[in-house]
Amino acid sequence: MSFRTEHDTFGELQVPADRYWGAQTQRSLQNFDIGGPSQRLPPPLIKAFGVVKKAASIINVSYGLDPKIGEAIQKAADDVISGKLMDHFPLVVFQTGSGTQTNMNVNEVISNRAIELLGGELGSKNPVHPNDHVNMSQSSNDTFPTAMHVAAVTEISHSLLPALTGLRDALNEKVQSFSHIIKIGRTHLQDATPLTLGQEFSGYVQQIDNGIARAKDVLPRLRFLAQGGTAVGTGLNTRKGFDVKVAAEISNITGLKFQTAPNKFEALACHDALAEAHGALNVIACSLMKIANDIRFLGSGPRCGFGELMLPENEPGSSIMPGKVNPTQCEAVTMVAAQVMGNQTTVSIASSNGHFELNVFKPVIIMNVLQSIRLLSDASRSFTKNCVVGIRANEKRINHLLNESLMLATILNSHLGYDNVAKAAKKAHREGTTLKEATVALQFLTPEEFDEKVRPELMLHPDDE
Amino acid sequence: MSFRTEHDTFGELQVPADRYWGAQTQRSLQNFDIGGPSQRLPPPLIKAFGVVKKAASIINVSYGLDPKIGEAIQKAADDVISGKLMDHFPLVVFQTGSGTQTNMNVNEVISNRAIELLGGELGSKNPVHPNDHVNMSQSSNDTFPTAMHVAAVTEISHSLLPALTGLRDALNEKVQSFSHIIKIGRTHLQDATPLTLGQEFSGYVQQIDNGIARAKDVLPRLRFLAQGGTAVGTGLNTRKGFDVKVAAEISNITGLKFQTAPNKFEALACHDALAEAHGALNVIACSLMKIANDIRFLGSGPRCGFGELMLPENEPGSSIMPGKVNPTQCEAVTMVAAQVMGNQTTVSIASSNGHFELNVFKPVIIMNVLQSIRLLSDASRSFTKNCVVGIRANEKRINHLLNESLMLATILNSHLGYDNVAKAAKKAHREGTTLKEATVALQFLTPEEFDEKVRPELMLHPDDE
Amino acid sequence: MSFRTEHDTFGELQVPADRYWGAQTQRSLQNFDIGGPSQRLPPPLIKAFGVVKKAASIINVSYGLDPKIGEAIQKAADDVISGKLMDHFPLVVFQTGSGTQTNMNVNEVISNRAIELLGGELGSKNPVHPNDHVNMSQSSNDTFPTAMHVAAVTEISHSLLPALTGLRDALNEKVQSFSHIIKIGRTHLQDATPLTLGQEFSGYVQQIDNGIARAKDVLPRLRFLAQGGTAVGTGLNTRKGFDVKVAAEISNITGLKFQTAPNKFEALACHDALAEAHGALNVIACSLMKIANDIRFLGSGPRCGFGELMLPENEPGSSIMPGKVNPTQCEAVTMVAAQVMGNQTTVSIASSNGHFELNVFKPVIIMNVLQSIRLLSDASRSFTKNCVVGIRANEKRINHLLNESLMLATILNSHLGYDNVAKAAKKAHREGTTLKEATVALQFLTPEEFDEKVRPELMLHPDDE
Amino acid sequence: MSFRTEHDTFGELQVPADRYWGAQTQRSLQNFDIGGPSQRLPPPLIKAFGVVKKAASIINVSYGLDPKIGEAIQKAADDVISGKLMDHFPLVVFQTGSGTQTNMNVNEVISNRAIELLGGELGSKNPVHPNDHVNMSQSSNDTFPTAMHVAAVTEISHSLLPALTGLRDALNEKVQSFSHIIKIGRTHLQDATPLTLGQEFSGYVQQIDNGIARAKDVLPRLRFLAQGGTAVGTGLNTRKGFDVKVAAEISNITGLKFQTAPNKFEALACHDALAEAHGALNVIACSLMKIANDIRFLGSGPRCGFGELMLPENEPGSSIMPGKVNPTQCEAVTMVAAQVMGNQTTVSIASSNGHFELNVFKPVIIMNVLQSIRLLSDASRSFTKNCVVGIRANEKRINHLLNESLMLATILNSHLGYDNVAKAAKKAHREGTTLKEATVALQFLTPEEFDEKVRPELMLHPDDE
Repeated sequence: MSFRTEHDTFGELQVPADRYWGAQTQRSLQNFDIGGPSQRLPPPLIKAFGVVKKAASIINVSYGLDPKIGEAIQKAADDVISGKLMDHFPLVVFQTGSGTQTNMNVNEVISNRAIELLGGELGSKNPVHPNDHVNMSQSSNDTFPTAMHVAAVTEISHSLLPALTGLRDALNEKVQSFSHIIKIGRTHLQDATPLTLGQEFSGYVQQIDNGIARAKDVLPRLRFLAQGGTAVGTGLNTRKGFDVKVAAEISNITGLKFQTAPNKFEALACHDALAEAHGALNVIACSLMKIANDIRFLGSGPRCGFGELMLPENEPGSSIMPGKVNPTQCEAVTMVAAQVMGNQTTVSIASSNGHFELNVFKPVIIMNVLQSIRLLSDASRSFTKNCVVGIRANEKRINHLLNESLMLATILNSHLGYDNVAKAAKKAHREGTTLKEATVALQFLTPEEFDEKVRPELMLHPDDE
Repeated sequence: MSFRTEHDTFGELQVPADRYWGAQTQRSLQNFDIGGPSQRLPPPLIKAFGVVKKAASIINVSYGLDPKIGEAIQKAADDVISGKLMDHFPLVVFQTGSGTQTNMNVNEVISNRAIELLGGELGSKNPVHPNDHVNMSQSSNDTFPTAMHVAAVTEISHSLLPALTGLRDALNEKVQSFSHIIKIGRTHLQDATPLTLGQEFSGYVQQIDNGIARAKDVLPRLRFLAQGGTAVGTGLNTRKGFDVKVAAEISNITGLKFQTAPNKFEALACHDALAEAHGALNVIACSLMKIANDIRFLGSGPRCGFGELMLPENEPGSSIMPGKVNPTQCEAVTMVAAQVMGNQTTVSIASSNGHFELNVFKPVIIMNVLQSIRLLSDASRSFTKNCVVGIRANEKRINHLLNESLMLATILNSHLGYDNVAKAAKKAHREGTTLKEATVALQFLTPEEFDEKVRPELMLHPDDE
Repeated sequence: MSFRTEHDTFGELQVPADRYWGAQTQRSLQNFDIGGPSQRLPPPLIKAFGVVKKAASIINVSYGLDPKIGEAIQKAADDVISGKLMDHFPLVVFQTGSGTQTNMNVNEVISNRAIELLGGELGSKNPVHPNDHVNMSQSSNDTFPTAMHVAAVTEISHSLLPALTGLRDALNEKVQSFSHIIKIGRTHLQDATPLTLGQEFSGYVQQIDNGIARAKDVLPRLRFLAQGGTAVGTGLNTRKGFDVKVAAEISNITGLKFQTAPNKFEALACHDALAEAHGALNVIACSLMKIANDIRFLGSGPRCGFGELMLPENEPGSSIMPGKVNPTQCEAVTMVAAQVMGNQTTVSIASSNGHFELNVFKPVIIMNVLQSIRLLSDASRSFTKNCVVGIRANEKRINHLLNESLMLATILNSHLGYDNVAKAAKKAHREGTTLKEATVALQFLTPEEFDEKVRPELMLHPDDE
Repeated sequence: MSFRTEHDTFGELQVPADRYWGAQTQRSLQNFDIGGPSQRLPPPLIKAFGVVKKAASIINVSYGLDPKIGEAIQKAADDVISGKLMDHFPLVVFQTGSGTQTNMNVNEVISNRAIELLGGELGSKNPVHPNDHVNMSQSSNDTFPTAMHVAAVTEISHSLLPALTGLRDALNEKVQSFSHIIKIGRTHLQDATPLTLGQEFSGYVQQIDNGIARAKDVLPRLRFLAQGGTAVGTGLNTRKGFDVKVAAEISNITGLKFQTAPNKFEALACHDALAEAHGALNVIACSLMKIANDIRFLGSGPRCGFGELMLPENEPGSSIMPGKVNPTQCEAVTMVAAQVMGNQTTVSIASSNGHFELNVFKPVIIMNVLQSIRLLSDASRSFTKNCVVGIRANEKRINHLLNESLMLATILNSHLGYDNVAKAAKKAHREGTTLKEATVALQFLTPEEFDEKVRPELMLHPDDE
């Protein structure tokens, strides 16, 4: 492995020759040996940084930056945005809490890549300087939170919302195809009055519909960008209007709406907007936990559980127990939910602990937010494709259970009075017979009358007005 | 103590003669001896139940309930709403997870109170029956979640929002009165470039403004009511339109907007809307933690801390250390924040654990939501009144620190170049002198030039375009 | 209502004439109107304060405090310990984070009660002064954490451990009485190989046994007391040996083991020991959640669920659905678990946020710890008495499900080979027949051979060596 | 890229030719596209699996497994243990909740590697079959939890405990070297009575000492292994004594103490022991948060903060603000703490959600536990090396602040009486003078008397007995 020498104000450092990063990145790598590669800052944040640097460079040119340098920066930034330089961003989450070192990593990589594009020498900082040119009019303190918001909005928009919509549509398809199947309801896990399997699934659709709305509802405050606040929020070292123009340019590049934050002091000193966003992710996790739990319990069996649903068989459930299908997609989804609900605690703690002009839990906040988005998105897609679309109803069993149930008695209250109905239901329960048998034996109704009156299909909606 | 006999389908029970509750309440008291009086369901929920029962009764009369009975129910419900029957609701949170026992407590109290109004005998269930009349067209499964939403919307609207607005206004008053005070900024807790104390407080105002917006943003889904779903969401035993009419009547009674939930299965089986609402409370807690931490650190001293703020002296800080003023209001606020952030975990867990047609963590969910609302409201009010309005700036110290700071050097970068500035700053740091002394000693500037150029008031905003 | 005048260094205040508290308590009441009576500091903490004051007074007498005064303090402290003065402690959790105001509340109540015992005038501070005598050699900063530890050890010892032991014994009784009942096992909620119902319950017993051990294992560090550290941990204003003697006296009074903390700086500045203790409570909550979930699912039905257990009927499950027994005790237990798991987050946040010489989240920490202990204790007792002892096995259904299961095929692997067994199991699954029918139909075994080989009782333990 | 065909009971799949894994691993890769490479199960778990498979094979040989096959398995397992096959374990956490797919990944890799060692053909399952030989007498349901415990004990023993010990020793070195430095104490962030800087650091040492003890205290229950429970805990398909012997062999291989679990049903169905272990990690995180917060606040400045400590300068703090040293190591530590405290929530939720005979949140539990161990270990090492060892006291400033403080007045209480002392302190506070000046001006003491009496060194410990 060969190396080149890079330097910063603290001195010289050896950097792998095939990497674009410079001295400050290398120094962070050495000083923060915490967690290893799995704890690197996630790619969507790095890409968002590419967007920020490109936008800033475009505006900087309009304020006087040499267009040749600006253009090289923008091309290099494009390589960051496309993801093809991802191996050049080795820094972990557990570094300085402002993310300064990652901002410098981006500055160094873009500077060196731009130098290369312009035929210069890596590490020379000439003709493209990481601070003076790439970081021009910026501070870590405003670029990092800007990149946080750009990444979060991008991932919610392009990953989470489509994934949830896919899941919602797959569940809704079941609402339609299960709309004719009447089943026993269960409250407190105990047999209750009936509903259709389609109605049951319609609750899940509503949960996901709401989840989609919740994810959209947190976007407005995420669309506000800190860029232009520089070191403490005053905007020192920028020009008036820089903030507004950068936000417009970022919108332009991403095709997503962004605006400059109305108060830059708030935008640097706290990350309430991301805590709010994670609150929505947390609810989505709760919803998925509920849905996945229901589906795996309804699919439990095949002989000794609820057994109302048949889930797709995706892999051998057991090497020794034939016929064993495990609800593995549900398990993955519920583990994702547990992870996201824990991430909520982390984000809350980190977000509440800003001090004075800067919150210094930035990397851990954005890592948790992006991880939750990714896990919820991936899990929703996997669950949709590998489970939901393939769910079938075990109509025979559903029907059998429905007819076994004593709760259908409820509809007889108005015919026979509560006390007589109770008598019949308790007799059936005690003797292990059907409700019909008990009712007939008690001479409350003839079999024909029973069949005419006790019809679950009458119990699925309010009475006519 | 004297008793009367009440009965339910399980048999007879002795109830204190001066209490309106009946057998099912008494049974719950005996079966759930968990946590004691401090764990009772909170008054706002009981009052909301009064609203629900009143509204249902009004609509029931329109569908045929004897108006005399209906009117007595409504009067009794008014007594629940006013809070004057609060001693008749002894049940704790840790009961059945549907809150059925509290629904029955309400039914029993209203029934007995209505019987009393009509001159009947307590416990006779005649002429007002707790189930047949008070609970008519209802189930615990839809009334409890309806009361949860009514209580949450009411408390957010009437308690939290005004309290936050009061805090916001008090902070904003400081923004104005502190707008002329230039102080050192701090990032990473380290000296940074300056800003005004007003700018610093403007960040807090923005946080609370956002908090108010967040609390409002969760109202839409809280305004959806489960009422009309009855046992499993189908609306069995109600009439078509009952749900819409009850929601309208509840709006009418409360003066707050409510609508029937678009999907009753979701409304019974999960409490995502309350988990979402608590997410907003959680962010408000994070914001308050940040603000209260800043204020107590800025007020630390009087001699050996940051000492930039002087907080009101509300009580003796120490019996042996004179002059000790402790930031006690900040301490109460941060303890509230810690409590709310923990409640978030409880609500998430409880909300995610619904099964099939019913979530049975209802009481613990609403208790935590209402507790968080109450604590945030009370703490905001207390903090405003007993701390924020009385905060004064220690301008002498602020000015002293500002002039001590080496970070003002930043503005010389464009005059002297970064390297020379660094030289001056490091010399001052090493020798413990002022920046001015070092700059003059290095013959970079005359004292007059220094004073002309190094003016913090130039560092508070972007440069002109 | 009549009042008397009390004063502190801030001036005079009107106090209800029938209350022993003084000016500082009254001031706190007015300055911290947060949360209301349900947020008062819990009785076990107040009682522990009584213990601390009594012990300090005994040692103070040995160092020269007038024995007459000392004796009066000790008598008054006894009244605090017995709980009969509980109405005189109105302060809420959300006050100053050191709990100073509660320490003063105790000092004031004991002083006034002692004055009364000695025939003096309430509020005169003569002959028993709240600071000079009751608080002698003490500071809020060491008494409050001492009371926290004394309360936690007392409640764990006298409430939690007996309650868990009772639950453990009730579960263990079921292990014995269910030891002969062979049932289908379930992994991934799916049918698996069999075990006895006694074996299943033995897992619960092990969980509670471990919970008891966990609760005991946190006692050693809770037994360390801060008393003697005074204001910052140095012990200024105490005499050498005071700390050791007070701890011994506290042991003496409580009959529980306590020792002086090896490092008082740690004992004031952080509450890791309580965070550790809550970690154990948290695991106990997890265990109870698991056990209560299992029991309510195994008891689900009566017709359309797992239905293997019959839980006691404690109250009407539904006013319209006869035969509906809801697993309400399980629901209370799981709600308690959710609350405790949230309290864990609060305690962690509060515990991690000490600064310098004092953690100022003391009241919220101890409130959460004591609440968790109380809820776990009460819930364990309630669950034991109202559910566990009355659980019966539905042997008929258990046996039916066992024989339905296809997983018994596992035992034929060594006789017929995996492939043939799989063939039989899949045929039975596809055709909805029993395993025996399929095996016989495939001519793998005669009915007699099947009955001889497929015996669940052979599948309950390892093979002989 | 070239492929080979592997098959399982569901059919054939193409596997990369240079990978040892087989069909079930490949199937999981395709079915669980959740989270990407950063969510792979952590190396310590994979290595622990190698240990389990090796130990099982050794015991299996003693029960009759062909020694040639056994030996090949053991050699292949050694390659897993050494970590050199890590690239062959691509599966993510979010798979089936039993970790079955990772167990099969291990079985497949060991089988193919053993086949290779014996000159066979990859994918042929001959002569070493992944199920029949590598998984012999095992089930995923007992191997996965066994590997969880082995990994946790190993990482706590070999990584966390040494890292904490290193930190403890570095802090203790400061206790010694700072023992002569008297400084102002701070409670409620406000000036209080003095202590030595060594005393202050001794609190941190006690916290870490306790953390080490806490980490050790959770080992006993982690040393219990599930191995031998097979599918549901009964031990079906093992021989009597297998469990004890495997545990002994695992002890042998690892050099760490392990025992067979006393109750296998508990060992499969819940993960309380890991929740307990994470409780200890959580407290350690709280401790580190406290210590790192103190150190960064005490190091705040250089001019406008507390400024009592000088932290090592490890990297440029700002490109425009010279002399800015940020407490970056503290920031990394506190971010780690926030992550671990969130992981606690995840582990609690996951651990509480087992059902019946199996907890199916195993992968997410062990991932969080191992991540917390790794982050705490790495952060402790980084913090020690890059911060703690280099901390210097700013004695000049410490002394200046000490003498500024008004709290030294406390020692005059016994000479002048509280009221006079208060008068002096308040005068000094009001007029901004020193305590000495005020005391002398009030003619309470001569300057000489003041100097003789007000000596902070007398305030550092209790008075002699």
